[in-house]
Amino acid sequence: MPDPTPASLPAPPYYAVVFTAVLSGAAAEGGPDGYQETDDRLMKLAADQPGFLGVDAARRADGLGVTVSYWRDEESIAAWREHMEHALARAYGREHWYASFALHVAKVERSYGFTSGPATPRP
Amino acid sequence: MPDPTPASLPAPPYYAVVFTAVLSGAAAEGGPDGYQETDDRLMKLAADQPGFLGVDAARRADGLGVTVSYWRDEESIAAWREHMEHALARAYGREHWYASFALHVAKVERSYGFTSGPATPRP
Repeated sequence: MPDPTPASLPAPPYYAVVFTAVLSGAAAEGGPDGYQETDDRLMKLAADQPGFLGVDAARRADGLGVTVSYWRDEESIAAWREHMEHALARAYGREHWYASFALHVAKVERSYGFTSGPATPRP
Repeated sequence: MPDPTPASLPAPPYYAVVFTAVLSGAAAEGGPDGYQETDDRLMKLAADQPGFLGVDAARRADGLGVTVSYWRDEESIAAWREHMEHALARAYGREHWYASFALHVAKVERSYGFTSGPATPRP
């Protein structure tokens, strides 16, 4: 599980990919067979891709998870989408892990941040 | 807690507001004093605003939560931002509930969905 701080990002514009997914079957901690290992592995792989800027992710006890990854541009999103291991995991996930999911690709136009103590608006 | 399904949305374009927040102090289920009641109340209020399209939200045991709300246009986001009760809750939250947060306003350019069984790409 990543550090409990929001992803640290450059000034907009950049892209956000919102992935909301519901795990099928027992939505226990860690998810169904092979899910957590693959998720961890993909997070590490994604972080190594050109244009990857950061990720914020959380999952509820009922199995619904929200993962927002941030990318420099459309090209870096497209390249990650076509990465073989990522593509295989998506196909496997549709068969075995997910009851449903939705994916939204969005261009971030502005962003603000706050850390307790003095307010620190982002550029 | 909402239903464990991703928000059902119209075809893009629409807007996503990504709110990633870390609760301060004990990040127990429910969060610090008054947090959960206010969060529930604001979710209901948001759902009644013109232009509100849906929300996906999850929180981790370590206190980091990701809430993505979806809106028809910039105007509906601006109106919700200026809603008195929402503004008061934001000010109170900065003082009492949040160790840190980040907010990203983004225009969704494309979206896909899947429900187990036959694939159902969105328009």
